[in-house]
Amino acid sequence: MCRWMAYSGDPILVEELLFRPAHSIIDQSLHARLGEYTTNGDGFGIGWYGDSKTPAVFKSTHPAWNNRNLCEIAGQIRTPLLFAHVRSSTGAPVQRSNCHPFRYGRWLWMHNGSLAGFQKMKRDLMLAVDPSLFAAIEGSTDTETLFFLALTFGLEKDPPGAVARAVGLVEVVGHRHGIEYPVRMTVAASDGESIWVFRYSSEKSTDSLYYSTDVAQLRQLHPDLEILNRLGAETRLIVSEPLRDLPEAWNEVPEGSWGVVRPGEDEIQPFRPLAART
Amino acid sequence: MCRWMAYSGDPILVEELLFRPAHSIIDQSLHARLGEYTTNGDGFGIGWYGDSKTPAVFKSTHPAWNNRNLCEIAGQIRTPLLFAHVRSSTGAPVQRSNCHPFRYGRWLWMHNGSLAGFQKMKRDLMLAVDPSLFAAIEGSTDTETLFFLALTFGLEKDPPGAVARAVGLVEVVGHRHGIEYPVRMTVAASDGESIWVFRYSSEKSTDSLYYSTDVAQLRQLHPDLEILNRLGAETRLIVSEPLRDLPEAWNEVPEGSWGVVRPGEDEIQPFRPLAART
Amino acid sequence: MCRWMAYSGDPILVEELLFRPAHSIIDQSLHARLGEYTTNGDGFGIGWYGDSKTPAVFKSTHPAWNNRNLCEIAGQIRTPLLFAHVRSSTGAPVQRSNCHPFRYGRWLWMHNGSLAGFQKMKRDLMLAVDPSLFAAIEGSTDTETLFFLALTFGLEKDPPGAVARAVGLVEVVGHRHGIEYPVRMTVAASDGESIWVFRYSSEKSTDSLYYSTDVAQLRQLHPDLEILNRLGAETRLIVSEPLRDLPEAWNEVPEGSWGVVRPGEDEIQPFRPLAART
Amino acid sequence: MCRWMAYSGDPILVEELLFRPAHSIIDQSLHARLGEYTTNGDGFGIGWYGDSKTPAVFKSTHPAWNNRNLCEIAGQIRTPLLFAHVRSSTGAPVQRSNCHPFRYGRWLWMHNGSLAGFQKMKRDLMLAVDPSLFAAIEGSTDTETLFFLALTFGLEKDPPGAVARAVGLVEVVGHRHGIEYPVRMTVAASDGESIWVFRYSSEKSTDSLYYSTDVAQLRQLHPDLEILNRLGAETRLIVSEPLRDLPEAWNEVPEGSWGVVRPGEDEIQPFRPLAART
Repeated sequence: MCRWMAYSGDPILVEELLFRPAHSIIDQSLHARLGEYTTNGDGFGIGWYGDSKTPAVFKSTHPAWNNRNLCEIAGQIRTPLLFAHVRSSTGAPVQRSNCHPFRYGRWLWMHNGSLAGFQKMKRDLMLAVDPSLFAAIEGSTDTETLFFLALTFGLEKDPPGAVARAVGLVEVVGHRHGIEYPVRMTVAASDGESIWVFRYSSEKSTDSLYYSTDVAQLRQLHPDLEILNRLGAETRLIVSEPLRDLPEAWNEVPEGSWGVVRPGEDEIQPFRPLAART
Repeated sequence: MCRWMAYSGDPILVEELLFRPAHSIIDQSLHARLGEYTTNGDGFGIGWYGDSKTPAVFKSTHPAWNNRNLCEIAGQIRTPLLFAHVRSSTGAPVQRSNCHPFRYGRWLWMHNGSLAGFQKMKRDLMLAVDPSLFAAIEGSTDTETLFFLALTFGLEKDPPGAVARAVGLVEVVGHRHGIEYPVRMTVAASDGESIWVFRYSSEKSTDSLYYSTDVAQLRQLHPDLEILNRLGAETRLIVSEPLRDLPEAWNEVPEGSWGVVRPGEDEIQPFRPLAART
Repeated sequence: MCRWMAYSGDPILVEELLFRPAHSIIDQSLHARLGEYTTNGDGFGIGWYGDSKTPAVFKSTHPAWNNRNLCEIAGQIRTPLLFAHVRSSTGAPVQRSNCHPFRYGRWLWMHNGSLAGFQKMKRDLMLAVDPSLFAAIEGSTDTETLFFLALTFGLEKDPPGAVARAVGLVEVVGHRHGIEYPVRMTVAASDGESIWVFRYSSEKSTDSLYYSTDVAQLRQLHPDLEILNRLGAETRLIVSEPLRDLPEAWNEVPEGSWGVVRPGEDEIQPFRPLAART
Repeated sequence: MCRWMAYSGDPILVEELLFRPAHSIIDQSLHARLGEYTTNGDGFGIGWYGDSKTPAVFKSTHPAWNNRNLCEIAGQIRTPLLFAHVRSSTGAPVQRSNCHPFRYGRWLWMHNGSLAGFQKMKRDLMLAVDPSLFAAIEGSTDTETLFFLALTFGLEKDPPGAVARAVGLVEVVGHRHGIEYPVRMTVAASDGESIWVFRYSSEKSTDSLYYSTDVAQLRQLHPDLEILNRLGAETRLIVSEPLRDLPEAWNEVPEGSWGVVRPGEDEIQPFRPLAART
């Protein structure tokens, strides 16, 4: 299991997101509160959009909590869209190519959860990846395979549909291999303009996921909180665990749903896997 | 804060000590139970005595819990005397030269605790290190400085006396810098034949330390426990936290004492710092 | 390109092989002489056989030349059969799972060379790997894929035949993708009793490979060389580049051949790929 | 020995400096041409000035040539003043705290060369460091000690004078320890506005150092070279080895001299150590 956060809003210095808030994602690498595991120390990664269409990623196999390079970079990078992830491996080696977020073209992808029995399903799932994408898989995680399945099924055109088909395929393949509950995931994906999030598990018992309350509303509730004045109206955070203990600041992404954060109106919808042909 | 264990007894495969026991030191790197911190993920190290007088050390800046090289080596090395340490940094960088155990000649040294206000005392303490030893200090921890002070004060001839003088010096220097409680330590030191342990803090509130009950006695208490038959009569473990939940297996090293594990009769005595001249 | 060495003979301390000889494999990591590249600094690995049937491996993503853990371990491990490899990546990430030697069951495998256009062939080659082996592939190198193809084609029963079929398959798949010379390799494989070596390239222009002259013969040539008296009659070294400048000590493995080092008579035979069905 | 480069001029994307030029510093990490050593693979670092007065640093113990994080960051950071360094250790451990550039407050410092017999001089030199600075020394290199001596002797107010006194002290201490030629250095230091460089050795046989020709002049010489049009008139590069093979582009910093690159007129002067009191 892992922890992640995604930010969309006015360009902000990365350290404001990673290091300043109480119970930030960095703190969660050492002291996660929700879920079974408290330590997420098997590497970390951040991905962000800068001047070019292609996002940049910085990843390390060391824990996030004492990483000096991360501190340095966090104080230098401003971005309107950040992904940050701290990893707790469910078996795949601790190596940079297994750290989230994953990138393909202008897309970023990160995940908390696991594909149960992934070793059994791995070959079938990788065969279902589009042959033109196959060689771009560099690591050995379930997450990266799921990402490439989503790309195969059209992530770039219809993210919710593509993820529904990818998850549908994993469930079909999993059941064929005798795995009762193949999928457990909170996922974030972005093309640099919108962020799609997914909370779903075959067993209907998915890890936690929260999104931040509208900033204007928050300001009314907490007129004394200075940082809220610095955040623009379009600011949105999606997190595995709430940062800071701020009443009314966080809303649960409902079990079995997907949402999109984008310029204009955000949206949350039910998520249902689509039976995919293999 | 950190966690450590020391083993003395019949030659044993390192993995029997590091990976087999319930709540082993590897488990303690991720889920320590006693004390404030549960994660000891800022590197680890093992030191052991083999064929030569000089011990070998294997250390890494990655956490111990998913370290594949550690697994490999643990399955290959047999030793009658092992030190193992998992680190939680109190500020000094996560680098190999700051990982315990430290080695000088045939001596190993490891530590759980800290010298409070070490940055203020550092220069004075390093000046007190014997000039011929000064350049051998490779890292930047309080622990290594304490080790070299103990070497300066005669560790190789009179371990309890040398550590008493080293600690006495740190307290004098600390008080001079306005530090009320300069020392907090559970320390293990070995020359390859005996293991000396120290549990002391200026505030009389030292982290936990346990030693294992005599194996013959344990066998009578737990006649069904197969591993006890494989351990020789001279087997002794000293640990920050008990391994396995075995009633009567562990005894607390008393607050403010030192002990020695050696061929023949072991011994525990009160520990009192000796005022050293600077 | 990379450099490797394999040792078979009386049990020997690893440091005698890795650090003592002039122009040892460690020196070759920094100053290789033969071939285009002088630096092999993209990680390293050693594999050896100890008490159990399964070999142990120690690998790192750091260069071999200043690796302190390697020095420590080399001074502690005695083995009758050692593989050592220093890597120069041809593109795949510098991560432990891409370091040689690779292991499966009791087998070790290492490689100098490359599969040309591997990214184009990768999917076809991985599909040809036995489904029961597929999930055991942890890295992303051409070498590991070739190893698993050899395992698929019967490495454990008939090493020369299995490698011939694996190479044959790669050439067929390569040609289908428009790659003129798909294979370039010096390979070593072992089951802990014998070492098989292969020197072959589609272009008939393979990197260098040498084996050591019979020790008895060497002793007659160099009666003054003390180390030769310590090496048993069965001692054999196979190396990418000769260690020490010892006239008559090294013989080239002929282009396009395989050989086996084993208890009893060693053997060298021509190597020809076998057209494999895909 | 090491290699370094320093850039001052219009804000530029770091990758334009590190990865684009033929024989860039990254290439020099693998294939240095001048001097005895061709590989500088014992870690690397970059330091740069961004929005704040304090520079940022990014350093790693892995070689620069295949470092993916370095590529990522180099594509995101724009700076008017960059230091880059690739290290070849002369003995001190390969750890982040030994990688250049070193930082103190708003100052950066990097070095190619060595203090001969540093282990013998280390204690005396560290005692000469201002006590208030002592605890800020984190690594174990000769370079960092020299930096802190320069800070002690007034680097922030009079860089050439402070370095002259620091070098003078090292020579006195070295001679006292029987070291004939204690200092060998090409050094760069910056406060974010100017860059001071030093080329000096006790033996008058210092490693190479070059500075770039005035851009206006270069444009006249190479009217067809597009990149010259993108570089402002104030652009200055100082490098251990020339980048690209451009006739008339590089001038040697004379043996035994210091120079300053700053807004307005640059300057080169003879460098003479000043006898310092210890």
